[in-house]
Amino acid sequence: MTNKPTIAILGGTGSEGTGLALRWAKNGYDVIIGSRKEEKALAVTSELNEILGEELIRGMENGAAAREADINVLTVVATAHETALIGLKDDLQGKILVDATARIKFPNPKPPEPPSAARLAQDLLGEGVPVVAAFQNIPASALKDLDKELDSDVLVCADKKEDADQVADLIRGAGMNAYYVGDLDLAITLEGLTAVLVYLNKFNDIKHASIKIVG
Amino acid sequence: MTNKPTIAILGGTGSEGTGLALRWAKNGYDVIIGSRKEEKALAVTSELNEILGEELIRGMENGAAAREADINVLTVVATAHETALIGLKDDLQGKILVDATARIKFPNPKPPEPPSAARLAQDLLGEGVPVVAAFQNIPASALKDLDKELDSDVLVCADKKEDADQVADLIRGAGMNAYYVGDLDLAITLEGLTAVLVYLNKFNDIKHASIKIVG
Repeated sequence: MTNKPTIAILGGTGSEGTGLALRWAKNGYDVIIGSRKEEKALAVTSELNEILGEELIRGMENGAAAREADINVLTVVATAHETALIGLKDDLQGKILVDATARIKFPNPKPPEPPSAARLAQDLLGEGVPVVAAFQNIPASALKDLDKELDSDVLVCADKKEDADQVADLIRGAGMNAYYVGDLDLAITLEGLTAVLVYLNKFNDIKHASIKIVG
Repeated sequence: MTNKPTIAILGGTGSEGTGLALRWAKNGYDVIIGSRKEEKALAVTSELNEILGEELIRGMENGAAAREADINVLTVVATAHETALIGLKDDLQGKILVDATARIKFPNPKPPEPPSAARLAQDLLGEGVPVVAAFQNIPASALKDLDKELDSDVLVCADKKEDADQVADLIRGAGMNAYYVGDLDLAITLEGLTAVLVYLNKFNDIKHASIKIVG
């Protein structure tokens, strides 16, 4: 592990995962895009490196990516959340898993019922994998526009604050503010907030609504 | 009903209610502070009018205040929510009720379980009283500091957008931005956000955290 940890973004070929990958790679982190199929990961990675103008990001099958990384970030689609966790349980042991999942259904999302996706992940993975919830409320489109400064803040949940602190460092490393807001049960509100942001866009003529902390 | 409606703030002697009363009175609204006991309402009202330097706010017993108002705002403590609604059901008929309730317990709040307090209020009051959820995430302390511009935004839920629009006008009239974010089921997330804001203050060296919409 060099100064900056290696970050694997599992199920990372979607817009949220690739957006985060670009931000971290641009800021000097070693980034791996993971996918169920290695060739998908490689194809997406090659597009991202083209955007960056350098071969900064690697592509791997999810399990290999998880084993190679110092810290893992899960950005699978919500419907694949449980299956992905079961399949990757062994590969994830001993490292923090950042869970970005917000289980909302389009086009008319409702706040999901407790427990939070991150609490479900923690229960499923066991104490060998400290789960940290983050990125539920960051519009993927904003991440991918590398020339744009991000003005939205990232709320972070974890049962242990020291795990959240490690992830907060990574978030700041990607150019965003991070705020610890409590244990994984609080993450149900971050998921609900994703639904709120959908309606904020819909009803208020906003394109990519997100939140900033003031006070 | 003049141009600006008469607003009754029921259970309005606490810090949230009095803060809202000051903001509205200062901006030319006719404001009534309601309380279970008329003398309590009158005592608090007299303090508020002293701050304003004018006899702008009236004090009444909750039921009388509700009947006199064009629009009612409920700021009772969370534990009194259901009892207050049952007691005031008849007095509230035919007018919008703005419900500011967030059912969180100090000092270690958890996000409450659905249904939202505002949905419970709507079910209890019936369709003669359109319920609108708002103000869950506005720090009372910020409201009372009249020299301070409010930089926090108000998220508004209602089953009918036209009801939310009326309340959004009042919110803007008190100097804040208002955003409609969907039906009363979404308000569970506004309540959870109140818990999140408690931890934001606690863990991040912030005094009166609230949120602003960006994007």
